[in-house]
Amino acid sequence: MDERGTRVREALRGQRIETPSWGYGNSGTRFKVFTRPGVPRDPWEKIEDASVVHRLTGVAPSVSLHIPWDTVEDYAELAKHAADLGVQIGVVNANVFQDDDFKLGSVTHPDPGVRRKAVDHLRHCVDVMDATGSRDLKLWFADGTNYPGQDSIRARQDRLSEALHEVYGRLGDDQRMLLEYKLFEPAFYTTDVPDWGTAYAHCLTLGERAQVVIDTGHHAPGTNIEFIVAVLARAGKLGAFDFNSRFYADDDLMAGAADPFQLFRIMHEIVVADVLGPDSGVTFMLDQCHNIEQKIPAVIRSVQNVQEATAKALLVDTDELAAAQASGDVLAANAVLMDAFATDVRPMLRELREEQGVDPDPVAAYHRSGHQTRIETERVGGEQAGWGA
Amino acid sequence: MDERGTRVREALRGQRIETPSWGYGNSGTRFKVFTRPGVPRDPWEKIEDASVVHRLTGVAPSVSLHIPWDTVEDYAELAKHAADLGVQIGVVNANVFQDDDFKLGSVTHPDPGVRRKAVDHLRHCVDVMDATGSRDLKLWFADGTNYPGQDSIRARQDRLSEALHEVYGRLGDDQRMLLEYKLFEPAFYTTDVPDWGTAYAHCLTLGERAQVVIDTGHHAPGTNIEFIVAVLARAGKLGAFDFNSRFYADDDLMAGAADPFQLFRIMHEIVVADVLGPDSGVTFMLDQCHNIEQKIPAVIRSVQNVQEATAKALLVDTDELAAAQASGDVLAANAVLMDAFATDVRPMLRELREEQGVDPDPVAAYHRSGHQTRIETERVGGEQAGWGA
Amino acid sequence: MDERGTRVREALRGQRIETPSWGYGNSGTRFKVFTRPGVPRDPWEKIEDASVVHRLTGVAPSVSLHIPWDTVEDYAELAKHAADLGVQIGVVNANVFQDDDFKLGSVTHPDPGVRRKAVDHLRHCVDVMDATGSRDLKLWFADGTNYPGQDSIRARQDRLSEALHEVYGRLGDDQRMLLEYKLFEPAFYTTDVPDWGTAYAHCLTLGERAQVVIDTGHHAPGTNIEFIVAVLARAGKLGAFDFNSRFYADDDLMAGAADPFQLFRIMHEIVVADVLGPDSGVTFMLDQCHNIEQKIPAVIRSVQNVQEATAKALLVDTDELAAAQASGDVLAANAVLMDAFATDVRPMLRELREEQGVDPDPVAAYHRSGHQTRIETERVGGEQAGWGA
Amino acid sequence: MDERGTRVREALRGQRIETPSWGYGNSGTRFKVFTRPGVPRDPWEKIEDASVVHRLTGVAPSVSLHIPWDTVEDYAELAKHAADLGVQIGVVNANVFQDDDFKLGSVTHPDPGVRRKAVDHLRHCVDVMDATGSRDLKLWFADGTNYPGQDSIRARQDRLSEALHEVYGRLGDDQRMLLEYKLFEPAFYTTDVPDWGTAYAHCLTLGERAQVVIDTGHHAPGTNIEFIVAVLARAGKLGAFDFNSRFYADDDLMAGAADPFQLFRIMHEIVVADVLGPDSGVTFMLDQCHNIEQKIPAVIRSVQNVQEATAKALLVDTDELAAAQASGDVLAANAVLMDAFATDVRPMLRELREEQGVDPDPVAAYHRSGHQTRIETERVGGEQAGWGA
Repeated sequence: MDERGTRVREALRGQRIETPSWGYGNSGTRFKVFTRPGVPRDPWEKIEDASVVHRLTGVAPSVSLHIPWDTVEDYAELAKHAADLGVQIGVVNANVFQDDDFKLGSVTHPDPGVRRKAVDHLRHCVDVMDATGSRDLKLWFADGTNYPGQDSIRARQDRLSEALHEVYGRLGDDQRMLLEYKLFEPAFYTTDVPDWGTAYAHCLTLGERAQVVIDTGHHAPGTNIEFIVAVLARAGKLGAFDFNSRFYADDDLMAGAADPFQLFRIMHEIVVADVLGPDSGVTFMLDQCHNIEQKIPAVIRSVQNVQEATAKALLVDTDELAAAQASGDVLAANAVLMDAFATDVRPMLRELREEQGVDPDPVAAYHRSGHQTRIETERVGGEQAGWGA
Repeated sequence: MDERGTRVREALRGQRIETPSWGYGNSGTRFKVFTRPGVPRDPWEKIEDASVVHRLTGVAPSVSLHIPWDTVEDYAELAKHAADLGVQIGVVNANVFQDDDFKLGSVTHPDPGVRRKAVDHLRHCVDVMDATGSRDLKLWFADGTNYPGQDSIRARQDRLSEALHEVYGRLGDDQRMLLEYKLFEPAFYTTDVPDWGTAYAHCLTLGERAQVVIDTGHHAPGTNIEFIVAVLARAGKLGAFDFNSRFYADDDLMAGAADPFQLFRIMHEIVVADVLGPDSGVTFMLDQCHNIEQKIPAVIRSVQNVQEATAKALLVDTDELAAAQASGDVLAANAVLMDAFATDVRPMLRELREEQGVDPDPVAAYHRSGHQTRIETERVGGEQAGWGA
Repeated sequence: MDERGTRVREALRGQRIETPSWGYGNSGTRFKVFTRPGVPRDPWEKIEDASVVHRLTGVAPSVSLHIPWDTVEDYAELAKHAADLGVQIGVVNANVFQDDDFKLGSVTHPDPGVRRKAVDHLRHCVDVMDATGSRDLKLWFADGTNYPGQDSIRARQDRLSEALHEVYGRLGDDQRMLLEYKLFEPAFYTTDVPDWGTAYAHCLTLGERAQVVIDTGHHAPGTNIEFIVAVLARAGKLGAFDFNSRFYADDDLMAGAADPFQLFRIMHEIVVADVLGPDSGVTFMLDQCHNIEQKIPAVIRSVQNVQEATAKALLVDTDELAAAQASGDVLAANAVLMDAFATDVRPMLRELREEQGVDPDPVAAYHRSGHQTRIETERVGGEQAGWGA
Repeated sequence: MDERGTRVREALRGQRIETPSWGYGNSGTRFKVFTRPGVPRDPWEKIEDASVVHRLTGVAPSVSLHIPWDTVEDYAELAKHAADLGVQIGVVNANVFQDDDFKLGSVTHPDPGVRRKAVDHLRHCVDVMDATGSRDLKLWFADGTNYPGQDSIRARQDRLSEALHEVYGRLGDDQRMLLEYKLFEPAFYTTDVPDWGTAYAHCLTLGERAQVVIDTGHHAPGTNIEFIVAVLARAGKLGAFDFNSRFYADDDLMAGAADPFQLFRIMHEIVVADVLGPDSGVTFMLDQCHNIEQKIPAVIRSVQNVQEATAKALLVDTDELAAAQASGDVLAANAVLMDAFATDVRPMLRELREEQGVDPDPVAAYHRSGHQTRIETERVGGEQAGWGA
């Protein structure tokens, strides 16, 4: 094996992809949430499913929580449950958008009482982090307005800033705030953190441990996401990814399903910026909704799609690329990238899995494992976990 | 008053705008459906609210139903209830997207049993039309796929065509089929009727009584909706409008709230094609979701917004416009249109309302009417009507 | 080799991709047309370059003309020149957008004199077809308006229809009219044939030999192009493709450069509809602008990109796909498609080229061929061919 | 007149809108630049036309230059020419996109020699500012790439930063750098300053006198521009506007022509942030292309459209608005805004013009003035000014 091959495999061995607890639950659109047999009924079962994904892929050792969706009485116990299953609690996501009080906003609401309630919940999420050993607080706000004039854009920025500062102050020294942006939905006129520029500007005023999250489904049509990756990495403000894919809006499809070439270009910028590894400070998560497909195999497939895009990105011949770029040879430079993308990396990934004692075909292994039959039999009664209305 | 003024007022007096039963119920996004006190708990109460809107505006004498949302035992009784309140049943909308069987489609589902069930429901909707005196069956399908390869695009078109033909054959001689298109949501990869071209092509093969519905929120970014209005009117295939407005996707905001100039341009094409009046065969409906605002006043406001856009469209000096167009004077032709749009038509509409015995300010009249207080007091217990998951 | 493999190779051997004469000339944006040494100065030299592409790829035996860009005195002579170089004249494209008279439109212009001039030019293009043996007249109109009110949308449709009928009547029995649509540019408010629905509706009224052209860069953001492919093929109205790729608008980049997965999905629908072969009646052309890259290698690269997407589409296991679709197994059906896309088809294409006596790496062969050096030396003096302002 | 009325009129009297020298020259799309009789042949004639617009509107006392389009031997003389005609030189725009060397970029080009040339041109533009008394250097870069891999996104950011710092250092103490962003065109894959976030981040590192320019046509579909206005104003980094309008991409239509409600919302944020007046540090410019319409009347119309949007924004009852916002009354807050927008402000503007000794209908006054006839007669021979290829 050549030197590049060795480096590629080493990088792939070190890659880590976090899966979201809510990806195992029911989800849907505003039109309908379809249920599916075997879906978890509580955080304990969600973590069990996440552990299955890790056992089968070998690269998904942590699971994100969403509070209050994953509320339990004893978070230390939940962390122990995870550890017993071979995974750990990853990022804590704060949900301040489903309480009736939050109809017109949470941290940006015109009413200071509602803002207080929202900030208290965010502080509570840091308590959960303390109890579970989580290092990252991820903040996505549904806050915004539906109609011109509904509220003051500027006043909402002031309120947002004040809330972020209070929560940032609550963080421990080894904890981070990850601020996510999104163009629209559920708000339809303004969103209070609609783009990376807004998230970046707030993170700058907060401090070093505030960083930006890129959700690949949260941009206006035509936005070049890998450009944002490159710019945030250059500025030291790239904190995390929420991977998923989309054809139209925030479709939350499986990562790599809608535009695998875009995912490859994103991974290329990550490789170029040298922020792929677990020590880079960049967290790689999935954030998806499996509305119509089986959930656990869909998560596995998404993990594999990210791995394949990463493998291709690692195969780019960076010396040749740099030479072609320097000489202004447009076609040659593009060809270097396309050569890597055209490569079939599945055999290499199968080999790597076997080396690591994992089945080369994790989806097939899942179907053979009996887990699906077991959960469909056992998880009867109770209320299935879900999100949305 | 000059001749144009007389014609404008006459046309405005004759304008009719249908309101949707579901616009009075709770709605939301996939993230949350917020509830609101006083919201109807059944079709009878929805029709009551619709009758209030008609009483206050004078131009909303019919209400669209959605089946099964508006299922009752005795539809003739429901029609009588409406008549007693001074309104009538308008378009019947068929919902074939919320039954668990419809997860992968209804009339285009790969399973013939599911398709049978869907078609039977559509036939049932014609029964409802027969019982209520409704003349229009409106078909919007959530059918589509989320992932490339999930199903055959062509086979789904064949199944769609077959279903439409069967339902079309069930219609009475004075009943129409109105086929609606939508770019995406809830399906994220393909939608089986994504654009006006697909709807038009199916209507052509069905026959004269099949016509296309334009929902103003159902297009790709940048689509020129008024062009579609003009083309469908020219082809005699413009059946109805679902008015609402949007900044991003199918936001379902109040008509005229996001882009009043677009609504004006649409009404201009309607006026130019001479299809404004009740005898034109074009039905004008609202199809909106009042997620965060009070519902009845939002419907009233939407009706007024459509009226204002119509009034401005009627004020366009068509002789001057034609002359400027014929001479290729771009600025002059544009100025004719903009002059009409810049006109403040609210005084004229207030006068017209007074002439017709309606309060000049219907929203204020609603707030003074006590209806809101009454429904918040009376409509307690039971389950509020809503839609979505 | 298995049966599928045999069929794949046979289909690839039969594939034909037409290159555009203007792709060899200078092009640019409204900001600047950069020139490049060696660019052809007349149609004869463009055809020479096209013949080089065919010699190196083996699959590009015809070249589209654009009239008046490719005006010569003796078209029979031009056809003979092509034949002598081993290629033939393909589609004739009519340019009615660069004469000063066409500022406000050509066939839809308010002035009948301008319309006459435009239609006469279209008829002249049929003369060129007669003289060159071309079978296809491709019509793309820049016609449209920039400002609301500028002209009557409906009147322009009437004028368009009249012009199309006259030209259609001029065609010989074995000649076709290919009608192309485009969302916007150069017109910014309305375009007279903005979408496939408009093109389709006109073709229906014209007759069997009028068919729709899909240019892959001419859609609104988010449009599912392969859906249109499937629908037009089902209706027997798919006439031709203009391949290119885009990130934003009509960028006219190399086919497959911006979204290779989309190109694959398009080719999949072509394969599924069985309209890939030369006898299918569907013509596959490139329509690109190589603004900053070397032109001939860019055309070669584009041809290869289309070949690779086709090869992957042919590799889809259609039996497995149909079975997964029929059973509603979303993930399995998607996986069948993705497996084909993930395959590295370059080795197979290299083998096929060698079998056909063509260099396995056509771009490298071009660079070794000395053609570029020769044209840069010889094509000095005169005015380089170009397009645009 | 009430107090609000007095303030509205005073604000409108103080409003200043700068017109662009290139708006008077020929422009077009990549397909064609149509010429028009009477168009200026040099900067002196462009300034003459700008002075006509100022004389007729009373609010356009300055004109932006574009270097090298407006290159003259003696810039002090050009400034004097302007002063003699009653206008002054405003912003200096640097053009580093039409020299053959800039095919692959200017300040971000991989070749340091090209970057040197580009920076030298930017420094020369500051010389022009010194000579003409201009206070603002506006930088828009066409720099970017067309193909993935073509160049390093990060390296280009580094080069951009270095160039901006050198030029910023060259500015005098009372001179500013205005950095403009644009999503795409002429580059089709990456643009080096594609969004406000990138421009903002660079301005932050440069210093106080570097500020962001918002061109209203430079955003992705669905971008909420007024949000950016509010955020940049809050951060003290809003430097200037390039007004124009668009339906699709950077259409450069007359301001207010495509979406007058959007222009109103933008002006509302400007009024709310109190940055309307000449002392606010925010410069209001037009940046338009009058491809098919008469140029001088189109500029006048655009100025009027901005005035009308401003007048409506000033009429918003801010006390009522704040009260409705504070109480969470969505419909009432929206209604306050819509009431202002629905007002016909043309009578007030006509009165104001008369007070200021200007014709109440500037376009009509232009047509009566004889200027058009004179320039069509006199400006014969020579080459008309234009831009683009």
